Amino acid sequence: MKALTYHGPGRRVWGDVPHAVIHEPEDAVVRVDAVTICGTDLHILKGDVPEVAFGRTLGHEAVGTVVAVGDGVRSIAVGDRVLVSCISSCGRCRYCRLGAYGQCTGGGGWILGHLVDGTQAEYVRTPFADNSLHKLPDEVTDESALLLADILPTSFEVGVRNGQVAPGDTLLVVGAGPIGLAAVMTAQLYSPGRIVVVDPAASRREAAKRVGADIVLSAAEATPDALRRLAGDGLGVDVAIEAVGLPETFELCAAAVRPGGHVANVGVHGRPAVLHLEDLWIRNVTITTGLVDTRTTPMLLEMLAAGRLHTEGLVTHRFGLDEMQEAYDVFGEADSNAALKVALFRS
Amino acid sequence: MKALTYHGPGRRVWGDVPHAVIHEPEDAVVRVDAVTICGTDLHILKGDVPEVAFGRTLGHEAVGTVVAVGDGVRSIAVGDRVLVSCISSCGRCRYCRLGAYGQCTGGGGWILGHLVDGTQAEYVRTPFADNSLHKLPDEVTDESALLLADILPTSFEVGVRNGQVAPGDTLLVVGAGPIGLAAVMTAQLYSPGRIVVVDPAASRREAAKRVGADIVLSAAEATPDALRRLAGDGLGVDVAIEAVGLPETFELCAAAVRPGGHVANVGVHGRPAVLHLEDLWIRNVTITTGLVDTRTTPMLLEMLAAGRLHTEGLVTHRFGLDEMQEAYDVFGEADSNAALKVALFRS
Amino acid sequence: MKALTYHGPGRRVWGDVPHAVIHEPEDAVVRVDAVTICGTDLHILKGDVPEVAFGRTLGHEAVGTVVAVGDGVRSIAVGDRVLVSCISSCGRCRYCRLGAYGQCTGGGGWILGHLVDGTQAEYVRTPFADNSLHKLPDEVTDESALLLADILPTSFEVGVRNGQVAPGDTLLVVGAGPIGLAAVMTAQLYSPGRIVVVDPAASRREAAKRVGADIVLSAAEATPDALRRLAGDGLGVDVAIEAVGLPETFELCAAAVRPGGHVANVGVHGRPAVLHLEDLWIRNVTITTGLVDTRTTPMLLEMLAAGRLHTEGLVTHRFGLDEMQEAYDVFGEADSNAALKVALFRS
Amino acid sequence: MKALTYHGPGRRVWGDVPHAVIHEPEDAVVRVDAVTICGTDLHILKGDVPEVAFGRTLGHEAVGTVVAVGDGVRSIAVGDRVLVSCISSCGRCRYCRLGAYGQCTGGGGWILGHLVDGTQAEYVRTPFADNSLHKLPDEVTDESALLLADILPTSFEVGVRNGQVAPGDTLLVVGAGPIGLAAVMTAQLYSPGRIVVVDPAASRREAAKRVGADIVLSAAEATPDALRRLAGDGLGVDVAIEAVGLPETFELCAAAVRPGGHVANVGVHGRPAVLHLEDLWIRNVTITTGLVDTRTTPMLLEMLAAGRLHTEGLVTHRFGLDEMQEAYDVFGEADSNAALKVALFRS
Repeated sequence: MKALTYHGPGRRVWGDVPHAVIHEPEDAVVRVDAVTICGTDLHILKGDVPEVAFGRTLGHEAVGTVVAVGDGVRSIAVGDRVLVSCISSCGRCRYCRLGAYGQCTGGGGWILGHLVDGTQAEYVRTPFADNSLHKLPDEVTDESALLLADILPTSFEVGVRNGQVAPGDTLLVVGAGPIGLAAVMTAQLYSPGRIVVVDPAASRREAAKRVGADIVLSAAEATPDALRRLAGDGLGVDVAIEAVGLPETFELCAAAVRPGGHVANVGVHGRPAVLHLEDLWIRNVTITTGLVDTRTTPMLLEMLAAGRLHTEGLVTHRFGLDEMQEAYDVFGEADSNAALKVALFRS
Repeated sequence: MKALTYHGPGRRVWGDVPHAVIHEPEDAVVRVDAVTICGTDLHILKGDVPEVAFGRTLGHEAVGTVVAVGDGVRSIAVGDRVLVSCISSCGRCRYCRLGAYGQCTGGGGWILGHLVDGTQAEYVRTPFADNSLHKLPDEVTDESALLLADILPTSFEVGVRNGQVAPGDTLLVVGAGPIGLAAVMTAQLYSPGRIVVVDPAASRREAAKRVGADIVLSAAEATPDALRRLAGDGLGVDVAIEAVGLPETFELCAAAVRPGGHVANVGVHGRPAVLHLEDLWIRNVTITTGLVDTRTTPMLLEMLAAGRLHTEGLVTHRFGLDEMQEAYDVFGEADSNAALKVALFRS
Repeated sequence: MKALTYHGPGRRVWGDVPHAVIHEPEDAVVRVDAVTICGTDLHILKGDVPEVAFGRTLGHEAVGTVVAVGDGVRSIAVGDRVLVSCISSCGRCRYCRLGAYGQCTGGGGWILGHLVDGTQAEYVRTPFADNSLHKLPDEVTDESALLLADILPTSFEVGVRNGQVAPGDTLLVVGAGPIGLAAVMTAQLYSPGRIVVVDPAASRREAAKRVGADIVLSAAEATPDALRRLAGDGLGVDVAIEAVGLPETFELCAAAVRPGGHVANVGVHGRPAVLHLEDLWIRNVTITTGLVDTRTTPMLLEMLAAGRLHTEGLVTHRFGLDEMQEAYDVFGEADSNAALKVALFRS
Repeated sequence: MKALTYHGPGRRVWGDVPHAVIHEPEDAVVRVDAVTICGTDLHILKGDVPEVAFGRTLGHEAVGTVVAVGDGVRSIAVGDRVLVSCISSCGRCRYCRLGAYGQCTGGGGWILGHLVDGTQAEYVRTPFADNSLHKLPDEVTDESALLLADILPTSFEVGVRNGQVAPGDTLLVVGAGPIGLAAVMTAQLYSPGRIVVVDPAASRREAAKRVGADIVLSAAEATPDALRRLAGDGLGVDVAIEAVGLPETFELCAAAVRPGGHVANVGVHGRPAVLHLEDLWIRNVTITTGLVDTRTTPMLLEMLAAGRLHTEGLVTHRFGLDEMQEAYDVFGEADSNAALKVALFRS
């Protein structure tokens, strides 16, 4: 079968690999019907994630059809149309037992396209299938479901819920890439009073407005003072979601929140940030980080099926599965291509 | 009357000042029966807190007797024996209305010995008396009550409760000065499984053991790896309380917590710290900062009165009120004097 | 001035009373510009609330203009356009200090039109003005603000928030009178997946649909089994809000929730209900009751001003202030008049 | 092998049954080293639990040694010394995925000695072994571990934690049988200010004092008024735990709590109670019910191993395993035998 594999920094190959098969009783094998590329895949290709082995198939997001299940799989059957979640869960460890599947210590967590072969292939083996695949309702299209493999639960859990967005809040989202836009989309489930989005790219600011931002600001406009004044009393925003992954954007979030406010970091960072404790020690600020657990994925799927969650506009480019290299080329130059998410479909 | 006043960096004066009187209908005037000195007072005397005016009476902690009340005071009467809390609360602003008195925007918050004259004097004017003084039960001595003016609620609210210490937790407290020891004392209200304290001074480590630490470590022993291994599974401690106020000790806390753990900063910081987001972004860590609200002061007082909270050992040196300068001299060289808290009493 | 006073069971008088004046330093006097009648007023008139004295002016909801303030009032000034909240808060007692104003033990709580003269008058004295009046933004009309004096915060706090309505939930609201409709309106701030409303009156079911109900059922259709089947897995609804005040409707709610679900009682009850502990003991059910605290009133006002909260349709009948008796006649026969809320305006 | 089986109302048999064997890949077989009898077993024997089949082996609490495991078991091995928890967890269903194992819809929950053969036998088959057995530290004796199979986590989760016992609270526990005493023991993990226990039996009141009660009252002394006056302000207790299972005791709890207080029902009820909504509707009361989830069992085990949780005094009578009938005779007449828990040990 065909797969996109990592051959060291800067080298990706779309070529033949051994067919995905059941290894463990709790595995399933899924035929990939739709798949996407994550910013994290680009990091891996730069060599930033050293635990990814040479030859590893990349990808941790897919929608597909189950073609085989191990003896220990109970709730998933051959023929099921499923979402392949970016997080696998052993269901047994201390973290899984309490719903923190992203921190699984029993062999799960983020493993697909990282520690085991991933979804950018014709077929994928999915460990712990009962706890890692989600059956799809008929009303949900492959393309919209695909966005629930990673970015919607990530933005919702790590951004909106960790940030404790509440009705009436002034919410700041720094970064209007796919993760920032997904934060704007899912934050509306908690009815903030005002959503402010900061991004240097005009096209992304426009996208933010289309999905629900009330105010959009360029990087130059978004000084800490200006952001603090957006709240009625000038004390700062209630919640700031960092959706970029740079020290400067994190520090902007920390400077913009009010006493008692929350900074929820979603961005993937490669460098440390400066934490201005000389200002913050007295301000009752809460800062959270995290990997998605996907515990809200079933709810988000229901809301999508019910027409109560809207993901239109996130997928900007569509390809056939065998156009994997072209899709990477487009997504790798997202800004110049005005790309948000790319989606690839089995033909 | 006599008071200790600030006369610019490095200069403190114990001398005559105008007698404290009622200014506003909600004021009380309290005769100071017992008072202490806070590390923050030393910061002020270094000139680190520029909003403190020349001539200001310092001090924000006292136990005393009410000698006058304004027309608008309802629940406090002349003759009442009271705790003067470090936090005043207007009772009307957005923050006070929800119990966040430390962030009061209506004229309260930390004002005593900061923005208005404080408690290191024979008498003190206390604004918003109804919401800022606490009547004392007879069973509670002046000395033990004095510790509830600031450090016990601070360590409990900003350290233990912000850190969400829970039964069975492995708790790390970095720093065994008065704040760190008060964290060890009050953390036991939530029954952690193990309390680990780090301090470079052997005498403070001994003090930590006396108030409830299970394991004490010198700074050299307390590497991040060593601290993480203290938890049963080697993933890190559940909660780390920073009780020093230095970048290094904060960074140690952040390195020592497990995925899903909490870092509760209590220390007063003068410089920024490095936040290693390149490690932390994926680890589900929650970091909190804060000024005490004193909303738990009534509960702590009840527990003290009931003999369920023990504060013995925190006061190491006792003086008469007119020995204020000597008390400052001892407290200013706390390490060489093996001093924790000093207490001064009206004779 | 004119006021509607209680003259014993069944007797209400619209007549002259002494003019409202300042009694306490924290009082304000408000000219009533708009006022409404609550179901509770009808209870009082039946004699069901014995602590209401003969001659008491009724009413605890109004919008008006401040005409006088006491010496101790700080944040409210003559000329301010204000919401008179059903709950007064002393700002000093144990309950007020933690935001539970409805349970004020310092002289506040629900006192207007109950323990002191109320709002169904040309003028009203409002105790604890700083903590009990809310300044109104210009964008908010008298009529829409009037709904925030009681029913919107009541339904939101005691129903939606006590019930912990969360995104995706199946929410049951039993009763589609003003309180039930306000629950449907405000529940949408938390994006339930589906709102089911039960009411015997077709006109009220229609009203429920207009304000956001997805499914409406008559009393006959709403068997416990039918309600439990509404949730996807047949185990029961996530949250049930009781908005009637009868044993049968409470018991229906308790029978309809899933294991782990919530019953939030909002209705005013005159008789006990049967609690089927022989079924419920094992089902992880949470039942809450409560009087509104109005701590969310500022947020609701902001959302109303921002156009994010819609209250259209709740006021069905409008009168001049001197048509008080006619308004009572209409509201007293709400069903036959298809009345929800009546509003009276100063001419 | 020998087992205690149910032969219809009133009939129990200690006799030979087929040996426990592995049925499913996730099963284990455990040799029973210590076992106890629960009040629920007596209910079953009265015929009150009709879903228990004729011939079923009773018992849902044990400590033992693993003698066989299925192919799908990963974390438990032959030879392990384990606690057999009263709750089995499939690890896959909606409820298990969020830690609510007691409500498992995937074949677990309370099944042992109820829907499948239980622990009152020489050997027991334990389904979902990875998620339902707990490896025991060497420091913990069989007898003390046995109390963590059911009553300690039940009292802690359903009583103390559902009731949200907090430091300083006045806690009322109605009933001083094993469940009530376990509530007193585990409540101390949250440092209530005062624990009040009500029981008609003087011997049980004495036992309550020995495990930590501050005040004990007979049924006659425990009027609602008397209980409400126990709190400092006379408004009622903060938390009331019902540990009996009768309408009267539940109603006493509901009458004794303060506005804003909690009633946590732990008792197993056979009849409905009267819920006085005509009083409670306005009082902000929270009532919870529930079956244990055992999500705190690992923590309780660690605390037991660390010597921070004390269970002495709960086991009053000890037997050999083949004295099962005698043990039932004693436990069935608990009052006249002054029995709390009986424990049976393999000889």
